[in-house]
Amino acid sequence: MNFFKYPQLVQASQNPPDLKKLLTPERITSFQAEAAGLKLLYATERVSDPILHALFSLADDRQAVNQMKAMQAGERVNAIQGYESENRPALHTAMRDVFEASKRSPIAQAAVDLAKKEIEKLRMFLPQVEEFTDIVQVGIGGSFLGPEAVYVGLKAYSLKGKRAHFISNVDPDETTKVLSSLDLSKTLIIIVSKSGSTLETMTNELLAREKLKDAGLNPKDHLIAVTGKESPMDDPAKYRASFYMWDYIGGRYSVTSMVGGVMLGFTLGIETYLEFLKGAHEMDLVALEENPKKNLPLLGALLGIWNRNFLNLPTVAVIPYSQALARFPAHLQQLDMESNGKHINKEGKVVDYNTGPIIWGEPGTNGQHSFFQSIHQGTTIVPLEIIGFKETQYGEDLMVQGSYSQEKLLANLFAQAIALAQGQENSNPNKVFTGNRPSSILFAQKLDPFTMGKLLAYYEHKVVFQGFIWNINSFDQEGVQLGKKLATEMIKTFEEVRGRKVPTYKLGEAYLKNLE
Amino acid sequence: MNFFKYPQLVQASQNPPDLKKLLTPERITSFQAEAAGLKLLYATERVSDPILHALFSLADDRQAVNQMKAMQAGERVNAIQGYESENRPALHTAMRDVFEASKRSPIAQAAVDLAKKEIEKLRMFLPQVEEFTDIVQVGIGGSFLGPEAVYVGLKAYSLKGKRAHFISNVDPDETTKVLSSLDLSKTLIIIVSKSGSTLETMTNELLAREKLKDAGLNPKDHLIAVTGKESPMDDPAKYRASFYMWDYIGGRYSVTSMVGGVMLGFTLGIETYLEFLKGAHEMDLVALEENPKKNLPLLGALLGIWNRNFLNLPTVAVIPYSQALARFPAHLQQLDMESNGKHINKEGKVVDYNTGPIIWGEPGTNGQHSFFQSIHQGTTIVPLEIIGFKETQYGEDLMVQGSYSQEKLLANLFAQAIALAQGQENSNPNKVFTGNRPSSILFAQKLDPFTMGKLLAYYEHKVVFQGFIWNINSFDQEGVQLGKKLATEMIKTFEEVRGRKVPTYKLGEAYLKNLE
Repeated sequence: MNFFKYPQLVQASQNPPDLKKLLTPERITSFQAEAAGLKLLYATERVSDPILHALFSLADDRQAVNQMKAMQAGERVNAIQGYESENRPALHTAMRDVFEASKRSPIAQAAVDLAKKEIEKLRMFLPQVEEFTDIVQVGIGGSFLGPEAVYVGLKAYSLKGKRAHFISNVDPDETTKVLSSLDLSKTLIIIVSKSGSTLETMTNELLAREKLKDAGLNPKDHLIAVTGKESPMDDPAKYRASFYMWDYIGGRYSVTSMVGGVMLGFTLGIETYLEFLKGAHEMDLVALEENPKKNLPLLGALLGIWNRNFLNLPTVAVIPYSQALARFPAHLQQLDMESNGKHINKEGKVVDYNTGPIIWGEPGTNGQHSFFQSIHQGTTIVPLEIIGFKETQYGEDLMVQGSYSQEKLLANLFAQAIALAQGQENSNPNKVFTGNRPSSILFAQKLDPFTMGKLLAYYEHKVVFQGFIWNINSFDQEGVQLGKKLATEMIKTFEEVRGRKVPTYKLGEAYLKNLE
Repeated sequence: MNFFKYPQLVQASQNPPDLKKLLTPERITSFQAEAAGLKLLYATERVSDPILHALFSLADDRQAVNQMKAMQAGERVNAIQGYESENRPALHTAMRDVFEASKRSPIAQAAVDLAKKEIEKLRMFLPQVEEFTDIVQVGIGGSFLGPEAVYVGLKAYSLKGKRAHFISNVDPDETTKVLSSLDLSKTLIIIVSKSGSTLETMTNELLAREKLKDAGLNPKDHLIAVTGKESPMDDPAKYRASFYMWDYIGGRYSVTSMVGGVMLGFTLGIETYLEFLKGAHEMDLVALEENPKKNLPLLGALLGIWNRNFLNLPTVAVIPYSQALARFPAHLQQLDMESNGKHINKEGKVVDYNTGPIIWGEPGTNGQHSFFQSIHQGTTIVPLEIIGFKETQYGEDLMVQGSYSQEKLLANLFAQAIALAQGQENSNPNKVFTGNRPSSILFAQKLDPFTMGKLLAYYEHKVVFQGFIWNINSFDQEGVQLGKKLATEMIKTFEEVRGRKVPTYKLGEAYLKNLE
């Protein structure tokens, strides 16, 4: 991958379009794309038609859409050529391809059949646990962030009296706080770990079992397993029910598998959960579109590549103007940074260009009263990915001083995009806004379950498309292994210090002196 | 401010210390500092003794400690010379300087006297509202993020049956969700706005008043004002009680004023709240230390300057290994980015060096299962500010597979610092870790109210010290004004469209076409 093979883009990046001059009503109207009811408004990105066309060529050269087709067909996209690697497919799209009969590769078909079976199991299971009011999901990483983001996002659609809670961290205070606030006799606890051996999750499972026993309950009646078939957790003697996931579902892509399914089915009801899956599936089809103006995730990916590799912007802030999406940036942080925070390409060569940026964000308008000072006037330019909806979820609103709250919310959303692009001159240097700070807006009618599914899949595919273009493996996470290895050393050191032995790990011993 | 006046630092930054070779038990033991029970462990920062001494000279040249003394004495540190500016003191330290009689400047003494008066009002007020169980804080920016972070951080110390909730966003779904989950007859609602005119807060106040009326309650019995004296909100006819703040308390520095005080006094009780203030005050005294090795916030500030201006790292990730600090990074995001995301210096000249970085973060170990892939192997180096505590808050823990959860948590904390610094070689390029990725660890005994106060003030002063060294005004926020102005235009456009008039603001009209 050599971005300098694109002289037009390199040249354009030296003198990118000046939004202060270019931002007109016509540009706002024409620089947009729409698919599956989602609109991407990108008039405030520093692009022009020639730049877009050059970016489309780049996607074409990198066979982006063909790679997406290969992924959805079950080819082994999770691999590094010439080296030991996970060497397997990434078939999260099969988890929601459960609505129509269609022609699929045998591998995708097999994954779809298994996914359908789990959904049917869930449909049969839910009526058996109707007397429960609360469900605690014990899991970390992808077994936590995506499910939590979707649960919080769709809380307005939860069944009356059904609530979910999450325990992720190995921090024992977290487990105590969550479990001590609940009536455990009415609580189900899902343990989620593909390997059945995640340190944090296994530890918290045992803490939860103790708490259930202390409350005079039989843990087995309350515990549900979500795990890989034949993992150490796949043991009917220990769980009320077990649901399966597979090695072709990466943690950060697992929300639409049973990793999210059991908890969301419990809180939303099975039909609403299926609506959510349907939305994701609809976006999966959009991602197969050849025309990048219709392929929304690909278009979003290319705008990101422009900002990252040509305008050299190190971060991206995701700003949903919807408090329901408060935890969505934390999910995207994992999805994007764990997928594309890589330093070698798919042939095992060190890359000489930037890969995945730092992803962060908080809801608007909150962010405006926090870090937006820096977004407008700081020395590091931050492109924004703004998300907004025309309608509220609850349908409750009030006119105050001539306008509704939802109107105020959206007025702020659009005003920020304009202000960042246009800037402002002033004789007081502290009131000068340099402008030309890029943003885009992803816009939909309403954050309902169907739209939530589309939004989730939009970002999954945007990230994967960027990985395809950067020629990296977006599906493994070797970068987390060294920390795990050294943590094991450190735990041993703790045990040695506790047992008054001389620790063998001298760096660890030096740190543990701070605990004396 | 010309960093290139420091040739030793510039030269050292070309070839910074190689942690892969240098990280030894001796370095871990000697590269630390301690003050007021907080330790800063910086063996895994890319510094050497000569670099530290050069950084200390820089602080000396910039009169950092003298500027801190001036701030605490009430000089007008919030000003831009030669231009219209807020031109006032920043006296948040006076809010907690309420424990001993000491010699103060007349301005600081006056602020201390006023702070004491509000604390006494609060002490008298709390017994009058003992029958209430819930308190909702309506406020945005500094009236939300800091108070929320401290409330969540100290939830383990909340009085039994006392809970706090927050409404910040103008998103009407947020207000509906929070208020509909509560028994309003037992709920107090605090409206927090210094100006008494914040759009979001005033709108949410009216929504709350409607909800109270709908529930057959008299709003005045439930509403408390926290506002500037003589603001439009300072009206005893409308509120059960009013508490004051002053223009010398910036929103992001206001947690220890009544902005945090009323809610924290209600949930923690007045004595525990005073413990928290005492901790902050203790760190205020540390910030006056001349010796940078004893002045922990100054030392932290200088390590940050090294990473930002010499190693050119654009972001900082704050990773508390404590789930209770889950919302602390969001507070620091505002505190740091709104204070130091500036492009002009205190003489109104455009700066030619980087100011405040992008601040983001999530708790560990959660982050390890999310974005740490990128921290270890991504192409953008991210310095970490790790926070940890020896003891748990609740004192509940369990030995699983030979170690306690708290030990596992801390083992992971130290292991990450070591792994990032040391890296790892491997014949498989995907298993190579380049190392030399900097981090520091802030370590204390236990996250109790006293320590929470110290931690809050540590970061306040670290940020302010960086502002002093960068020669910028860390106390204003002109960068939020343009967005507000254009939002007003947009709200008018909404009203015109709703009233079927032709909008005058054509850019706004173009965006609103997406709502048709």
